[in-house]
Amino acid sequence: MIIGELINTSRKSIKPLVENYDAEAILAIVRSEAEAGADFIDLNCGTFVKDEPERLTWLTKLVAESIDTPICLDSPNPAALRAALPLLKGPAVINSISAETKRYNDILPLALEFGAKLIALCLDGKAVPKTAEERYTIGAQLIENLVKAGIPADNIYIDPLVEPVSVSQNGGLVLLETVRRLHTDYPEVHFICGLSNISFGLPNRKLVNRYFLAQTIGAGMDSFILDPTDRSLMGCYWASRMLVGQDKFCSQYLKANRQGLFEDK
Amino acid sequence: MIIGELINTSRKSIKPLVENYDAEAILAIVRSEAEAGADFIDLNCGTFVKDEPERLTWLTKLVAESIDTPICLDSPNPAALRAALPLLKGPAVINSISAETKRYNDILPLALEFGAKLIALCLDGKAVPKTAEERYTIGAQLIENLVKAGIPADNIYIDPLVEPVSVSQNGGLVLLETVRRLHTDYPEVHFICGLSNISFGLPNRKLVNRYFLAQTIGAGMDSFILDPTDRSLMGCYWASRMLVGQDKFCSQYLKANRQGLFEDK
Repeated sequence: MIIGELINTSRKSIKPLVENYDAEAILAIVRSEAEAGADFIDLNCGTFVKDEPERLTWLTKLVAESIDTPICLDSPNPAALRAALPLLKGPAVINSISAETKRYNDILPLALEFGAKLIALCLDGKAVPKTAEERYTIGAQLIENLVKAGIPADNIYIDPLVEPVSVSQNGGLVLLETVRRLHTDYPEVHFICGLSNISFGLPNRKLVNRYFLAQTIGAGMDSFILDPTDRSLMGCYWASRMLVGQDKFCSQYLKANRQGLFEDK
Repeated sequence: MIIGELINTSRKSIKPLVENYDAEAILAIVRSEAEAGADFIDLNCGTFVKDEPERLTWLTKLVAESIDTPICLDSPNPAALRAALPLLKGPAVINSISAETKRYNDILPLALEFGAKLIALCLDGKAVPKTAEERYTIGAQLIENLVKAGIPADNIYIDPLVEPVSVSQNGGLVLLETVRRLHTDYPEVHFICGLSNISFGLPNRKLVNRYFLAQTIGAGMDSFILDPTDRSLMGCYWASRMLVGQDKFCSQYLKANRQGLFEDK
């Protein structure tokens, strides 16, 4: 599953569009994500702290009424989610729940009521856990609690959290090990991450992001929050899936190549 | 460990150079591999079936006398190896032994006598094993037998064999799982492969090779037989090692970047 990440008001180019209710410009970006192959469109206006519910409602209504690609509501704010969820026309993704008690109790009822897919962070409210062991424990507990509460395992997307390798030497390795272990023990659950944090502070960030994407797919990750209009990144996605046996007769890779969806980069 | 693969008479451009004893042209290629960072120079003249010992001896003498980078003797022919091994000045790599009885008995005494590092194929003489389980069993047996015979674990480089994904959908996955399992159970042993077979029959082969290299490093592979003068491939190597915690303070990646050893490709 690919979630298009572009509509996020923390991006300099997006913030003024939401501020000025520039529907046309936003829809042009959303359509480019859908055409590039996004399965869901992420909507995030978390930078509008006070009027996030109103902004997210406006955005959600706009996108849901204009295109068929379903929406990922990217907010930890239950008021914003509660306002936006009824506007969706297709399946929903909520990004995100965590093991932190308040957040867990705020988000779970919404996911149950609207039958949403849930992105669940390996985070219990304190600092980001340093070891794969700790993240595994939080992730496994989240999966078991969510399934017990009535969320189908197939609707759970565990986000093991990406830390920059420039800050934490084992940041990449810890993520790969967490995914590998949880994927082995819970094969029906999905795994997702936003890649770009891995390369924070390094030169050639896009190159680093691509090789990390390949490694995460090798470890069992199957979903990403990324820029689907980045043709090199999507080439990496198709090639990497093919390399772990998820592309029968290499047909999706060959099709993407025929359509010129990526280059040798 | 990077083994430079260019001096191989199965390459159209190399065969005539060995045929005509063109020392100058061969040394130019060998030097380019050494300058690009090869730790060993592979020498393979397997296409000269009858006079392989004589050709390999000439090549080995030429390279050993001209540059300091040590040599990987790439031949299953004990007569060729026996002739070439005494000419080496530094550490040797023999490429390769396997679990096939005759080959095992031919190569092992040479490795012991000359203290060589050994590339060991997960192959017992029959067809290439299809499952990770079978390759693991052959690999584990090889490791235990070689260690028992006196080869230090640190001198063993297991090659789990690369099959094209265009031929075998799970070719990549089987390799990754074999490496993962053997690496977990035998952490002191090394893992090596030649990458390019993975992309046989596909468009954008170099792109596919790079993403596969990233995935194999994610699974625990640490050595490669490749073209070290391919700057994009080496960029992948440095980035991928960094991503699994093998590059303290990202210093090797940053140094390679400063030296312009790769581009954002």
